[in-house]
Amino acid sequence: MHAERISYQELKALLKAIFLNNRTASETADILAENCSACERDGALSHGIFRVAGYIASLRSGWVDGHAVPEATRVGPSFIRIEARNGFAQRALCAADPLIRQAVGETGIAVAAIRDSHHFSALWPDVEPFALSGYVAITAVNGLANVVPHGGRKAVYGTNPIAFAVPVQDAPPLVVDQATSVMANGEVRLHALADKHVPQGTGVDRDGNPTTDPHAILAGGALNTFGGYKGSSIALFVEILAGAVTGGQFSFENDFTGFEGAQTPKAGQLMIVIDPNWGRSTNFEARLAGLCAQLVDAGQNRLPGTRRLANREEAERSGIPINCNELNRLRQLAGQRS
Amino acid sequence: MHAERISYQELKALLKAIFLNNRTASETADILAENCSACERDGALSHGIFRVAGYIASLRSGWVDGHAVPEATRVGPSFIRIEARNGFAQRALCAADPLIRQAVGETGIAVAAIRDSHHFSALWPDVEPFALSGYVAITAVNGLANVVPHGGRKAVYGTNPIAFAVPVQDAPPLVVDQATSVMANGEVRLHALADKHVPQGTGVDRDGNPTTDPHAILAGGALNTFGGYKGSSIALFVEILAGAVTGGQFSFENDFTGFEGAQTPKAGQLMIVIDPNWGRSTNFEARLAGLCAQLVDAGQNRLPGTRRLANREEAERSGIPINCNELNRLRQLAGQRS
Repeated sequence: MHAERISYQELKALLKAIFLNNRTASETADILAENCSACERDGALSHGIFRVAGYIASLRSGWVDGHAVPEATRVGPSFIRIEARNGFAQRALCAADPLIRQAVGETGIAVAAIRDSHHFSALWPDVEPFALSGYVAITAVNGLANVVPHGGRKAVYGTNPIAFAVPVQDAPPLVVDQATSVMANGEVRLHALADKHVPQGTGVDRDGNPTTDPHAILAGGALNTFGGYKGSSIALFVEILAGAVTGGQFSFENDFTGFEGAQTPKAGQLMIVIDPNWGRSTNFEARLAGLCAQLVDAGQNRLPGTRRLANREEAERSGIPINCNELNRLRQLAGQRS
Repeated sequence: MHAERISYQELKALLKAIFLNNRTASETADILAENCSACERDGALSHGIFRVAGYIASLRSGWVDGHAVPEATRVGPSFIRIEARNGFAQRALCAADPLIRQAVGETGIAVAAIRDSHHFSALWPDVEPFALSGYVAITAVNGLANVVPHGGRKAVYGTNPIAFAVPVQDAPPLVVDQATSVMANGEVRLHALADKHVPQGTGVDRDGNPTTDPHAILAGGALNTFGGYKGSSIALFVEILAGAVTGGQFSFENDFTGFEGAQTPKAGQLMIVIDPNWGRSTNFEARLAGLCAQLVDAGQNRLPGTRRLANREEAERSGIPINCNELNRLRQLAGQRS
């Protein structure tokens, strides 16, 4: 497959035009385009342009509101409540950002509880900016019920990802973003698209039987949680934080009936931001650098996020590689001549 | 093995006498005895009376200070900093408890950062009381370096447990407490004591080779993290929260040199307590009951903590079963005639 390399700015402009063509307000289109371009740039392909079709279908179906204006309220010194109003979580988080920073600055910790929101992307773009400001950030999102609790036979959880970001001295922030399912749903879709089997233990078919067929997992089947019962407990905690503490809804409460083409999960997102300097640690970032050095010394050859940062650097040098057919399709969707 | 059944109060009194006989202040002895008795009562045997010998050896070695008086300071509206002064984390948490409750009441969330502390027990006793008050609590503790990061060949992390507790309508709180290692260290010790092999994948020997021999794991070897690289990331985050955000020390910084018999890890503990009613959820506990019902409906036959609660009920009815030799040994340590 022949690929063309385009710049991050060019991709972002292209995606923004596509969102604007599909029932999305300018500010939201900007936020989503930036988010989606960053995922593609960093090689987080399951959340890059691969997602565009799903965004469009969901927006056209009326299931998610591209014109929603979120309402962020600081209901307590450290508690920010965000009503996403059936819009995208990224726009809601943007609206809350100044309040979160104000709260953490004044109290040492802030919690942002987003409800009635759609999250269709990776989580690392949500936490990385806080680490760049010297904060420790952690976030959790629930989703569509497509993950079986350990020992169960029916999907209850979403892939329920969890992410955290931490500043490190003389280095980019340490950023971890992972689904609590064995595999991210986007990865299953990529396997299905390529007609490639998934590893054993990844999921079950609609009858609850183990399968390595990604189509069977996507067609009424479900994924397993990672790490047996312990991973299942983490998935449970994400469900509680994102689906209940926010006042949002649980993964199993999503109902697409009447919204043909809808794909984005209506869920909740909880974000906790801590200023580590309120501990007794005046040298937090230096200590993190020491911890990272210890991991390397122990033989962990790749720290979390390393590959993403390498992709980012490469894209900044040489552009983002995109398959030509794919790029033509995006240009058509943006209303440009191919 | 013949067992005698004694009441929780009797066991607690016995253990308190033992702590008092071993360089521990009355208030600390009371807290530790309550904690240890509760573990034994709930069938959390690896943190019950099995730990008494380790407590005693550590206290006698001078490595941990049984007379330490912790200092808890509310350094910001939501941030409580606790200097454990080389004492036990449970005593430090006790000292912080009123400040935590004050902070969460006023701001919606509180973070308690304990440093220079020793934690030698389970975590569920630390979080359960907050859930009984209607709060969501999460805590993390680092420890002694005896866990290899995924892909590494040397221990960096402690077993780095994480626990959370959540209130549920018309039911006991949902409480999860799990090590981020494949197996808790106490479990490995119990296997070693019984000369039973641990499952494959549990750990490595001192040369970094996989082993199922608990003695090899304990003698310079190490445990693996649960759930591959994803579990390893959770262990990393615990290390950061408990070892760095608190201003405490990392697991690999423990050094027992000069303290013959020391066993308790000098580490940190981070606790976050959230009032879920500050979200938009006015029916949080009812929604949690709904989520639990969904898990049961999906076929998850045992919710987290179920066995512990069953043991507790049984112990309240019929007493706590303790092996007679063991009980005699405890009575001797307490200075009672056997």
